[in-house]
Amino acid sequence: MPEIAGVRIATGAAGIKYKDRTDVLLALFDKGTSVAGVLTRSKCPSAPVEWCRAKLNGGEARALVVNSGNANAFTGKTGREATAFTAKLASGAAGCKAAEVFLASTGVIGEPLPAQRFDGVMQSLAQKAAPGRFLDAAQAIMTTDTFPKVATAQAKIDGVTVTINGIAKGAGMIAPDMATMLSFVFTDAPIAARALQSILSDTVVDTFNAVTVDGDTSTSDTLLAFATGAARAPKIARASDPKLKAFRTAFRKVLTDLSEQVARDGEGARKLVEVIVEGATSKKSARRIALSIANSPLVKTAIAGEDANWGRVVMAVGKAGEPADRDKLSIWFGDTRVAHKGARDPGYDEAAVSAYMKSPEITLKVSLGLGKARDRVLTCDLTKEYVAINGDYRS
Amino acid sequence: MPEIAGVRIATGAAGIKYKDRTDVLLALFDKGTSVAGVLTRSKCPSAPVEWCRAKLNGGEARALVVNSGNANAFTGKTGREATAFTAKLASGAAGCKAAEVFLASTGVIGEPLPAQRFDGVMQSLAQKAAPGRFLDAAQAIMTTDTFPKVATAQAKIDGVTVTINGIAKGAGMIAPDMATMLSFVFTDAPIAARALQSILSDTVVDTFNAVTVDGDTSTSDTLLAFATGAARAPKIARASDPKLKAFRTAFRKVLTDLSEQVARDGEGARKLVEVIVEGATSKKSARRIALSIANSPLVKTAIAGEDANWGRVVMAVGKAGEPADRDKLSIWFGDTRVAHKGARDPGYDEAAVSAYMKSPEITLKVSLGLGKARDRVLTCDLTKEYVAINGDYRS
Repeated sequence: MPEIAGVRIATGAAGIKYKDRTDVLLALFDKGTSVAGVLTRSKCPSAPVEWCRAKLNGGEARALVVNSGNANAFTGKTGREATAFTAKLASGAAGCKAAEVFLASTGVIGEPLPAQRFDGVMQSLAQKAAPGRFLDAAQAIMTTDTFPKVATAQAKIDGVTVTINGIAKGAGMIAPDMATMLSFVFTDAPIAARALQSILSDTVVDTFNAVTVDGDTSTSDTLLAFATGAARAPKIARASDPKLKAFRTAFRKVLTDLSEQVARDGEGARKLVEVIVEGATSKKSARRIALSIANSPLVKTAIAGEDANWGRVVMAVGKAGEPADRDKLSIWFGDTRVAHKGARDPGYDEAAVSAYMKSPEITLKVSLGLGKARDRVLTCDLTKEYVAINGDYRS
Repeated sequence: MPEIAGVRIATGAAGIKYKDRTDVLLALFDKGTSVAGVLTRSKCPSAPVEWCRAKLNGGEARALVVNSGNANAFTGKTGREATAFTAKLASGAAGCKAAEVFLASTGVIGEPLPAQRFDGVMQSLAQKAAPGRFLDAAQAIMTTDTFPKVATAQAKIDGVTVTINGIAKGAGMIAPDMATMLSFVFTDAPIAARALQSILSDTVVDTFNAVTVDGDTSTSDTLLAFATGAARAPKIARASDPKLKAFRTAFRKVLTDLSEQVARDGEGARKLVEVIVEGATSKKSARRIALSIANSPLVKTAIAGEDANWGRVVMAVGKAGEPADRDKLSIWFGDTRVAHKGARDPGYDEAAVSAYMKSPEITLKVSLGLGKARDRVLTCDLTKEYVAINGDYRS
């Protein structure tokens, strides 16, 4: 991961929940850094989500503090006090206003966050913060993730190269309604907060919002983008500026890469599953049907069992409540059409499909035969390990 | 299970899928039997569901044929031919019109139903059909069920005792949108088809439609009620007839009992879970929030792990999209209030809750603190066995 001019990072161990690992991330931004964000639509958002929602209006960021091990969600007044205390510590260490500090927390819901544990570490984190270290940052925010999630891309704005780095955590409680659990994107491009917000909101629709692990939307979903403006490109004020074309593409590439990693690393997952719905009456309808398939426990357990059980795909299309005509429906696993116009495809080769189902990446396509709209979501299989991870101890 | 005058039953082995067990049920009804039904709202209904939907308008039934092992769903023209052929066989054996024969099938989706196998058995089933035998009937329609599901109740209509017997199958793909997978209710009460339909449609709302195992709505959901009229009570033409008061109560008791058995015997389930939502702005809103909790994989795996993880209940309330105010939310497991007004209840006894979570029946209550509406749904836990049942072979 390359450095981003204007961003310095440090990670540390505050002992919130885990032992022998980092669990707190401090990112410091140079003056003039703009910020944009998308946050969970949950009616029970966490305290840091409420903090960010209030501070995003300011459009400026100087610090980001993220902890793992405790979500500071459903923690009432104590939770609000913990966010204010954390922001005060960070603003003191960073030499900025508390309103320029952004916060995110991930981990168990309902336990008070012992924010006083940041007291000892914040100042030293600020002192040792250095350029680069994005992989360390991704590691510090992991919970049940099995690998750190990072992505990077470059683009030119008016001939000047800018870099976009992103990190994310995922694993479970993943059905982003605005963003994933936690993801942070950093760029040295000089983009005003309002334009950055517009790009972020556009890009999230087909990246993070098109990913589901278990259909359970988190109380903590937070995706923040920071643009330091340290690259010597012309300042961009409007999202519609044609100079942003390559940047938009690179930005989408980073979010696509991160969101795919989140689906791939779903709790207990062994397979990445792409669900494509075409021939729908609208994109919204295609999305709903794709999510009905991607969230169906019966479809997901069949894929875990490497069984091309397309009857369960029919069930999931049928239950979505969207326009569908059984007798026009066709279904593919990989390149094999297993069902055609309302019945099993008489010509399909069960052996070929069975072999395909052993792949680590499965594409499942449904053609509704009604219209021209299409959509695509990513998910993973549902394994006994998912149940073990979420049933054997409090995560 | 008592006999129902006017109903004779026989079961047999047609070898559709299973070996060494019964897989076909024939019920014969005396002349004058009225019928009512509720059927899946799936956009991809099975061939027998379409058959029943067309024949229910007639209001009269003389025979019911149910097979397990094959759902005859997504089987195209072949499926329609299989239902017509089966109805013809049954009408020949029963001496009635094909339109007075009702059909249901349960099992794998997408495989053609080998209805010719009924050819040898239908005539002999009709000959050996006898009163009683409801437990045999419940056994013949089982798939992944671990026990046969029967229920019975009696009521008086104008001083005359009438009996209501019901059977059901459940296990997986259970989120009835009109009925459960398959359930059949029989009574000797003399109730006209239209009145019976009205009672059935009313009663299903808080019984079968308030049950979910995995949120996956079947293509085959069928609930049929048959009233032979053999009891010497006055004929009831209208659902609003006050003479039906006790009958309605008994009818509800049978459906409540059967639907609870379906939740209790959810695939892989070890616990029956009752989810109560109160203080909602409407019953519809309470139902949606209750289903969001009951269908959440994270809530269900926590219960499987005997963990009172109420943070996940907060998550499920938050994602439902219905009116909710985090800071008014309270949550109980059993009698213990674990969360109160947006935070952990400071007084709660973790040891008591942990002991409670070991019970085979768990009640989880959410108070939204917004209005006076209340609702309740039943579900079960999500265990590794559910994944094994649905991932280890094609069910």
